[in-house]
Amino acid sequence: MKLTREQALAYVKPYLKPERYEHTVRVADTAIELASRFGVDKSQAELAAALHDYAKYMPTNLMERWIKQDRRLPKDLLHYHHELWHGPVGALMLEQELGLEDEAVLSAITYHTTGKKHMSPLDKVVFLADYIEPGRNFPGVDEVREIAETNLEQACALALKNTIVFLISKERTVYPDTFHAYNDLI
Amino acid sequence: MKLTREQALAYVKPYLKPERYEHTVRVADTAIELASRFGVDKSQAELAAALHDYAKYMPTNLMERWIKQDRRLPKDLLHYHHELWHGPVGALMLEQELGLEDEAVLSAITYHTTGKKHMSPLDKVVFLADYIEPGRNFPGVDEVREIAETNLEQACALALKNTIVFLISKERTVYPDTFHAYNDLI
Repeated sequence: MKLTREQALAYVKPYLKPERYEHTVRVADTAIELASRFGVDKSQAELAAALHDYAKYMPTNLMERWIKQDRRLPKDLLHYHHELWHGPVGALMLEQELGLEDEAVLSAITYHTTGKKHMSPLDKVVFLADYIEPGRNFPGVDEVREIAETNLEQACALALKNTIVFLISKERTVYPDTFHAYNDLI
Repeated sequence: MKLTREQALAYVKPYLKPERYEHTVRVADTAIELASRFGVDKSQAELAAALHDYAKYMPTNLMERWIKQDRRLPKDLLHYHHELWHGPVGALMLEQELGLEDEAVLSAITYHTTGKKHMSPLDKVVFLADYIEPGRNFPGVDEVREIAETNLEQACALALKNTIVFLISKERTVYPDTFHAYNDLI
């Protein structure tokens, strides 16, 4: 099936807190901008961005059940912070419940938090849009925004670098896909 | 075969620059101290430490040939900095040329630079001794030395954390084993 922006946003809205919904709208706008700048399909970027946080507030035990039961989801997710689950679980839920079939869009949703080795341009656009949308204000985001004006790969590399250093400074684990993404882009 | 400290040091000396040989002696002394503190076999720690940098100055193309030809060496090493090769290649060289058979000692030599998931206590002692021997003076080493007075795991975790942050700050890749070691100890 093919969704418009309005349909996609209307689909996720009931599952999101108001501020998370506003974030989602900004990610969609930023994703269109980045897609346009870097020659990526704008409607795929917009759709993936509109849907990316669909599972953000799904109960942890529900997501845990999906991870345990669906053979496509890597089981090692269970050993990492549940904050990392909503991307991959959300993509599968959207595929099964909504009939979303576009693999490129599903991939961008799956990896929007962790990144992965060999991200597609669409994966990078959604990952980066989520990181730099105008509501974000964590340390280092302005430098990433500046690089995102001209270089998609370098902007993603810096975002990944900031993320890893942040996690390590908090003595938190780093999901393997995240450092594979970093190594891949460096 | 069983080597004394003197035999091990004499074996590696011709392959090392003088300052690297002095480093090796200090790593051996530090390893004995740590082993004694944390209930690890002192003679294994001393032997692994004495031999750990055997391949440090082996020509890169020679090490590359070993990595390509020996099925036990992970091929992905070739995609990372050759600074990481001397541990795993050195251990295999020592096994084949010197007849070193002690798997625990070979493991400690193999992983002394990168670390890995599920390091043995001996792996940790040699890794840490190499990091904190009295000749080292990089930023953060004193804090690791202090923790190493009482806690082997925490000291290794901090050394790994410092290493990863250093590499990332230099925009260098991080070998996956190093991330796995960090995640494992956090």
